Amino acid sequence: MEGFDKFISYDDAMNIFDSMNWKYPGKENININSSLNMISYDNVYSDQDIPEFNKSAVDGYALKSSDIINAAINNPAMLKVIGSSEAGEKFSEKIKENQCIEVYTGSEIPDGADAVVKVEDTEKHGDYIYVYSSLKHDNIFKKGEDIAKGYKILEKNERILPQHIAAMASVRIDNITVYKKIKIGIISTGNEIANKKIVNSTGILLKNYYNNNNFIETLDGGIYSDNAHDIVKGINNIINACDIIIVTGGTSLGRKDMTTDAVSSLGKLLFSGIAIKPGRTMAIFNVNNKPVISVSGLPVAALLSSLIFINRYIKNIYNFDYYKKITGILDENIHNKIGFTLFQICRAYETNNKIHILPLKTTGSGILSTIIYGNSIAMVPENLESIENNKYVTVYMLGDIKWD
Amino acid sequence: MEGFDKFISYDDAMNIFDSMNWKYPGKENININSSLNMISYDNVYSDQDIPEFNKSAVDGYALKSSDIINAAINNPAMLKVIGSSEAGEKFSEKIKENQCIEVYTGSEIPDGADAVVKVEDTEKHGDYIYVYSSLKHDNIFKKGEDIAKGYKILEKNERILPQHIAAMASVRIDNITVYKKIKIGIISTGNEIANKKIVNSTGILLKNYYNNNNFIETLDGGIYSDNAHDIVKGINNIINACDIIIVTGGTSLGRKDMTTDAVSSLGKLLFSGIAIKPGRTMAIFNVNNKPVISVSGLPVAALLSSLIFINRYIKNIYNFDYYKKITGILDENIHNKIGFTLFQICRAYETNNKIHILPLKTTGSGILSTIIYGNSIAMVPENLESIENNKYVTVYMLGDIKWD
Repeated sequence: MEGFDKFISYDDAMNIFDSMNWKYPGKENININSSLNMISYDNVYSDQDIPEFNKSAVDGYALKSSDIINAAINNPAMLKVIGSSEAGEKFSEKIKENQCIEVYTGSEIPDGADAVVKVEDTEKHGDYIYVYSSLKHDNIFKKGEDIAKGYKILEKNERILPQHIAAMASVRIDNITVYKKIKIGIISTGNEIANKKIVNSTGILLKNYYNNNNFIETLDGGIYSDNAHDIVKGINNIINACDIIIVTGGTSLGRKDMTTDAVSSLGKLLFSGIAIKPGRTMAIFNVNNKPVISVSGLPVAALLSSLIFINRYIKNIYNFDYYKKITGILDENIHNKIGFTLFQICRAYETNNKIHILPLKTTGSGILSTIIYGNSIAMVPENLESIENNKYVTVYMLGDIKWD
Repeated sequence: MEGFDKFISYDDAMNIFDSMNWKYPGKENININSSLNMISYDNVYSDQDIPEFNKSAVDGYALKSSDIINAAINNPAMLKVIGSSEAGEKFSEKIKENQCIEVYTGSEIPDGADAVVKVEDTEKHGDYIYVYSSLKHDNIFKKGEDIAKGYKILEKNERILPQHIAAMASVRIDNITVYKKIKIGIISTGNEIANKKIVNSTGILLKNYYNNNNFIETLDGGIYSDNAHDIVKGINNIINACDIIIVTGGTSLGRKDMTTDAVSSLGKLLFSGIAIKPGRTMAIFNVNNKPVISVSGLPVAALLSSLIFINRYIKNIYNFDYYKKITGILDENIHNKIGFTLFQICRAYETNNKIHILPLKTTGSGILSTIIYGNSIAMVPENLESIENNKYVTVYMLGDIKWD
């Protein structure tokens, strides 16, 4: 008879998984232009100041502020324009009293000057400008004000955003060290998908889900009928090119022994049957120090049960969650069967300035439509019988927050 | 003298922008496998039921539930196993009283049967099974229970997620109509970047920011010195391949006339100078019914001021915001200059189950580091002098919510 005493707990499964000596993918040095959404391997510091020099924040005239400190409508200051400098350039002479030079946004502030008056706050007459008031701001964009020498542009283990790339480019960092992409192979099994009676929607879901970022790459390992020899061959074909393999299908009782025997012939079974819902029939193997994750053929079970281990794998490398998280107020109770860790599909939405979490009723783990209306997963630990409504709950996002 | 009476208001600028007869990019029919993160052009409905038939949700025996309704430990029901059917297959005969067939997860429920008993709840003796209790669930995954015929898988104007693709595949939809990608050309101008005294971090920021999704494509239009003839040539080179062009640099007063004259020779100036901060010196032109957006050479000003019009362009086509939004509690007052619409860079973070919004002090619109520490933008309308702390404020996200 079935009982959960035959299922390993979620925590025990994670501990076994973590204790393996997995061959994590390592690092590589790449050009910053290819690094968008990859994960930094090191802290990246600026070795220079940006701006590299004091520069004008406006178009106008660089001058000594002391020359116009008493300027007023009835007492204009008059300064001689002794030259000009383009953006990015510096005037070669030192500015003396009652002198100024024409500057543009980005021009280097010349020696002797300590402020810039905006062109629209001056009147020009021949070689002279008249200034009718003192300055509220010096209008200088200071050396190092944006990015100071030593500033940490990028943290180790951080997802690389457009603004990081722009900041690295501005301090002339061309190459950085990132983690190599994690390569996930997907092997789909089952007579009903091999003979095309049923579409392999599970394989399609996993491929698109794991491809939807720039630090994972998926590899389609093909579709196999329920034949241990073929499945072994399929895994062998791709194992060297992959860091992780997900095998879908073949976890139902009638097929389990075959899949288990097949994969066991290649490596070690770590556990089979885990007290999670959905996905309790999953198994994990260690093949050449790479995880082979055997999951249900049903799409939602396959996604959620593979995801919790892929997330763990990522956390072990990068020390961050693959998932994006958000906390909201639970709209309805979530009930759980003690002894099982529940992954409850929810709809996270914002209304009246608050995030709400609505748990969705599902009647089966094959229900694709619940992750179309839903967008997130709440995790209920095995020792909790329920989470009450109106409590705060943190969910992992599978899509964007909705606005209802 | 400068005054904001010379700046067009944000609302007026938007109205003018909306009133143009822009050549929006149109639609195309593509394979669902290439559609991830593109935008649907039509509602997509299922024309079939998934599952296509009643199927077993477990491995076990399909039977008439009335045959085991009185089954108990001391009164087992005994049924004859008259055959079996594989997942995806259907047994050809009708099940009669006290008969059953072996089924697997996914097998079609045979005629005559209305329930499935799990294999682990039975004992097999020769051709017979013994069942010791009645059923709590029928263990049948009903026809149409996942996706019913007529179910709307995808809304018009929705971003296509992995789960949409899997659902479309499962109902054998191969091709769908999506909006063509919006092609944004980026022309960078300025002597200081053309002569490489300064790195073109603004162009790099825009390129990576707008490329960071699958419904926009950017085209690098090159770097030009402050020469009207070259800039005109640069725009002409790419205008046919683009839907929108962003020209960076050349909005400071000393250069504005040149850029304005250059782009005006190709099309109509809609407005120049808009009461927003940062980015007030921007201008928009209509060239061949395509927007040419002239923005500051400073990275943050260039990003924010182009973004509000790109977002508007997208909203006019797709009726959704390019930005992802979140509402949180403001940690500090935001002050605004009446008459200007302020785009305030903030850090949105979750702590103690709440989203907080911390406005960041910036001293200039070139400050890249503020959009590294910050991740979002709060918009303060021109008629508001401030937003007080502890008020709710909705921000547009430039990165992920932080967890502090």
